[in-house]
This record gives sequence, structure tokens and C-alpha cells, in this order.
Amino acid sequence: MDNRAIGIFDSGVGGVTVLKELQKLLPNENFAYIGDTASFPYGSKSKKTIIELCKKRIENLIDMEVKMIVIACGTATSQALEEMQAMFNIPIIGIIKPTVRYLRDMNFKKIGVIATTGTIRSNGWEEKIKESIPEAKVQNKACPLLAPMAEEGWIDNEIAKLAIHEYLKDIKNIDALVLGCTHYPLFKKIIKGEVGENVDIINTGEMVAREVREYIRKNKMENGNSENGDTQIYLTDLECNFINVAKKLLQAEDVKIQKIG
Amino acid sequence: MDNRAIGIFDSGVGGVTVLKELQKLLPNENFAYIGDTASFPYGSKSKKTIIELCKKRIENLIDMEVKMIVIACGTATSQALEEMQAMFNIPIIGIIKPTVRYLRDMNFKKIGVIATTGTIRSNGWEEKIKESIPEAKVQNKACPLLAPMAEEGWIDNEIAKLAIHEYLKDIKNIDALVLGCTHYPLFKKIIKGEVGENVDIINTGEMVAREVREYIRKNKMENGNSENGDTQIYLTDLECNFINVAKKLLQAEDVKIQKIG
Repeated sequence: MDNRAIGIFDSGVGGVTVLKELQKLLPNENFAYIGDTASFPYGSKSKKTIIELCKKRIENLIDMEVKMIVIACGTATSQALEEMQAMFNIPIIGIIKPTVRYLRDMNFKKIGVIATTGTIRSNGWEEKIKESIPEAKVQNKACPLLAPMAEEGWIDNEIAKLAIHEYLKDIKNIDALVLGCTHYPLFKKIIKGEVGENVDIINTGEMVAREVREYIRKNKMENGNSENGDTQIYLTDLECNFINVAKKLLQAEDVKIQKIG
Repeated sequence: MDNRAIGIFDSGVGGVTVLKELQKLLPNENFAYIGDTASFPYGSKSKKTIIELCKKRIENLIDMEVKMIVIACGTATSQALEEMQAMFNIPIIGIIKPTVRYLRDMNFKKIGVIATTGTIRSNGWEEKIKESIPEAKVQNKACPLLAPMAEEGWIDNEIAKLAIHEYLKDIKNIDALVLGCTHYPLFKKIIKGEVGENVDIINTGEMVAREVREYIRKNKMENGNSENGDTQIYLTDLECNFINVAKKLLQAEDVKIQKIG
């Protein structure tokens, strides 16, 4: 039994889509979430910059004595997960591996991946998908404006619709579309309208939450407390739309945040 | 006579709209431009973060032995100009003062200001305008997605049009619209279409270039060389759309960039 919190971080509010799935699946766990809003967006930054930022956020979470860390960010997972796992002596889970496992289990072969510029450029999704499903055909598309739109709260207007149409119009003939950035589930309704009912739209948060549950069970790291867990949210810059978007996402009346870093 | 370069910096490609006006007005000056692409966007960051970033970029420019510095960024001017002028012993010019002087000279009283979230929140434009033109009525609007759209190169599509319509629809009955972020002149055509022919759309780069010319003449700091000057461009992160957008802006066949910081 291990009552310490599970640490989570993202560049901003996107990782809250992962936090939400974790809270759903593991209601009695405690969570510590860092939104690195001072450095948002990660998606347009270089690998080197992302590695520096991830290192700082993981150090923050280790200082809070978390028991494991979830990188709830597609860019950070694809650019820095392996480096962080080599650098720190704490379990670190990203969003790619659990999702690829699901793609393989579901026998998907024609797969679209949308993500930030940095993620697509790193080719991390395609490489990991093809390692696991060699016959897969992967269509990639960078959508650099979607995460900023989500941070702005433009998640269901005509502009979001047009931008998503612009980004998705060339992706054809797929069975599954991976939302390779944790901000994108905020646009799920529009994306579903764009790609049609027959495409499985994959919210990586669900896959990550299952992976975390399995990991803590296997390693006997569950929180022994039977009450509902607590979530602490920290931002590196408080002056942003985080609260409004997070409130919508978590369907919470209020979201309390603290400054860090 | 002073043959050293004029230093310029911005969060990304926006300041190139200022560089372009400077090159036009001062063709035999040398310029050193830093685009802080690793930290883009400045517009959503706090004052404290902006001050830290500006300090680093000014130190970079001082290391290059520039003779003066232009903060070609609305956010950095409104959040950090005074702090930088107090901190460093080198002439530093921002984009607000020269523009306000023009507004006063032109006798504008009904003024719209569009800028990033940080700039609008700081109220820097409105304060400076009212100090100079006490009877002015100022309408402010934060447009946080426009700078990211410019960095993406979406400067003349339907999405940019809709976003600009969304941001400008409540600004009514103005004589002049200040583009309070140096990225916005990239959308000048769309903005003109939105606000109509009778509104003077103010590209701060033009005002800044005049101010710099006046300053170096008055202080006998002109470059004595009669040949065309040289421009060096440095980015803190090379992996971005900077070159494509800058090429369009400067109507140059190629733009050479170097890594810094």
C-alpha cells in the first residue's frame, strides 16, 4: 500500500483530460498535477527545450514525494520520455505505449495520428505503432493551433470547426484516429463530426488510466485509503484560462490552483 | 558615427514587421534580430516570466555589442520596458511611446487597441494613450490566437478571417486601430476588411522606425558606412516556421538564421 500521490504534468490544461480519466478509474488515489503554463505551448519547441522543461517539472513532482509520474502530454512523451526514464529513479508513464497497446489489441491497421508539430516531427507515434503493428499504415498530421485554441477555450465554435476541417481534410480511409495531444479530446465532438462515426477516436487519457491502474496493482502501490482521493493542481503561471477550461472538463464548480516553479 | 548594429528582439517572427520598417528607413544600418522562438508565445505569460525572458535576450544583444535595442514586441514593451531601461545601461526603445506620439500628432480620440492577453491585461497601451491624450476613448481587445496563427503562416485564410471577425466584432466607432502586437501587421488586409477604410490601421513598426532614426540622428550614432547594411537573425529554437513567414514578410528569396541561447 502506498498513499503518496500520483504526479501528472502537461504544458497546460490538456493533461486534465488524462487526470479526469485517472480520477474516474482510481477514485481513491491522490493526484498532484502540474500545468506548465509559463512555458505553454510545448508543441512548437525543440527536443532540447522539451527535455529541460520536463526535467524541471519532474523535479517539482519528486519534491512533492509522488509515487509515480504520468507525462500527460504528447509532445513531452514523444520528445523526452526515454530521457526522463533514464534520468530519474521513479516510474514514469507516457501516453504513447498504453495507446499503442490498445491499437494492437483492437487490431487496427489504418491509423491516423494528429498531434503537435514537435510530436509529429519526432515520428514517435509512427515508430512505436510500427514496432508493435508492422503492417500498420499510419497517416500523420501536425495541428499546431489546436492546443492554443483549447487553452483559449475555443473548443466548440466555427473557428475550431474550420481549423479541424483544415487539419483533417487529407486524412482518408482510417479505422482509428489517435488524439496524440492531450488537449485534443476537448474537440472530440467536432473531430467525430469531421471523420465520421466509423472511425474510433482514441482519447489517450483512457489508455493511460488503465495502464496506471494495472501498474499500481501489479506493484502493490495502491492507496490504502478507501475514501475519495484528493487532487492538487499547480501552475507555473497563474494568469491563464486554465480554471475555466478545467472546470468545464472536470464538470467541477470550482478548481483551486497554486503557483509553482 | 557608430557602425555597431541595432539590436532587435521579439518572441518570434512578429518583430520582423518592425525590422522591415527599420531596414526601409535606415538602409545602411546593421541589424541583429533575435526571435525567442523557444519561449514563444510571450502573450500568455506573466509579467515576471516576460521580465526574465527580456533580460536574457537583452544580455544576448549586449554580448553582440549592439549600439541600442528595440523591443519589437508589444507584450515585452508593455510588461518589461521600464524594468529593462532601469536594469541596463544602453538605449532601449519599445513600440508604445512612438505609437502614442503618432496618435497624438494625428489628433485621434477614438482608438481601438488589439494585442495579446498579457499586453491588454497590463493596460499599458490605455495608460500611455491617456497620459498623452486625456480625452481619448480607448477600446481594448485581447486576441491571444492571432500571434500563434501568424507563426503558423495562417495569415490569409478563412480561419484567420473568422478569428479576426470574432475578436473585432465588438470594437465600434473608432478612428484608429493600434496593432499592439508586432505579429498583427501580417493580417493587415483582413483587418482592413473588417474595420473598413475609414479606420487608420496603425503598424507600430513604422512609428518605431521613425523614432529610431530620430534617436540615432540626434545622438550622432548613425552608421558611417554608405553601403547597404547587414542583418543577422538569431533564433532560440530553429525548428519553427520562422523562415517561411519571414521570407514572405521581407520578400526575400532566402533568410539565414543562426541558433542562440
